[in-house]
Amino acid sequence: MTLDDIKKEVRDIPDFPSKGILFKDLTTVFKNAQCIQLLASELHAIYKDKGITKIIGIESRGFVMGSMLSLTLNAGFVPIRKKGKLPADCYEIEYQLEYGSAIIELHKDALNKNDVVLIHDDLLATGGTLAAAIRLVKMAGVKKIYTNTLVELEFLKGKEVIDNDVEFRTLIKY
Amino acid sequence: MTLDDIKKEVRDIPDFPSKGILFKDLTTVFKNAQCIQLLASELHAIYKDKGITKIIGIESRGFVMGSMLSLTLNAGFVPIRKKGKLPADCYEIEYQLEYGSAIIELHKDALNKNDVVLIHDDLLATGGTLAAAIRLVKMAGVKKIYTNTLVELEFLKGKEVIDNDVEFRTLIKY
Repeated sequence: MTLDDIKKEVRDIPDFPSKGILFKDLTTVFKNAQCIQLLASELHAIYKDKGITKIIGIESRGFVMGSMLSLTLNAGFVPIRKKGKLPADCYEIEYQLEYGSAIIELHKDALNKNDVVLIHDDLLATGGTLAAAIRLVKMAGVKKIYTNTLVELEFLKGKEVIDNDVEFRTLIKY
Repeated sequence: MTLDDIKKEVRDIPDFPSKGILFKDLTTVFKNAQCIQLLASELHAIYKDKGITKIIGIESRGFVMGSMLSLTLNAGFVPIRKKGKLPADCYEIEYQLEYGSAIIELHKDALNKNDVVLIHDDLLATGGTLAAAIRLVKMAGVKKIYTNTLVELEFLKGKEVIDNDVEFRTLIKY
């Protein structure tokens, strides 16, 4: 199995979550054990020598491969969640969506200044959520930030809103 | 490190998500790489010889250790999510909460009759969500169902609402 085979397992869902959006559904990838093993192995190979101490998963699809990476890299796992879901003191940030805005949060005690973090989400589209997540992590103050997703929709140019001092990698591009 | 050490890392949050509830916060466990390694290792030891083909994680805290288990057990990972989050055709079930009700969903094509599944959530309280998840998986039709959580609040007697033909295991009890 190769990443091209995995790309074929991604399911296109027209008009989800709203009219005109072609949603890339990764549940068809995650239900396949071979796909999981390959994705985890590819990501481990990229990050194993970076000294990563914490994986940050973005709620909730980013929790899936993010937590696997925390296991294979022997790192902690830290969630970024929508407002109101995390129970202790949080940093929060509001960011713009196509229609309206959203607020995401990070526990204030989740990270420290010596952490090397990898922020993971399943997919990069316009990049708004990932850019906001980077700002949250910068509020916390860490040593270095890496970011990655499994899939990138290149035509939406999400990479352009990611800070220049933050490395972004992806495995599958459209 | 032992499971007793992990129990000490769990953080009590009074009055979350609502007045009178003492919330068991596992983010303090998950951010600790040693805790993750031990929990994953304990769960792997319990389930490695059961022939499990799919791990079902209950949104969204159940995604964290659930997806790690899918990696260590070489199984697929399948999410159960709140209504409206899964993009393709779903089985759905409504169940009662203390106040009001909730609906959770499972993709119709996520499981098959030969699957041996492990339904995972982070915590068992009154058991309503886990019991509903079992009913969803039974709608799909599989060979065998195991269930487990990291933490069980025994005084809430959640085990009493789990079907007798479904084995339940937990690692940490209160």
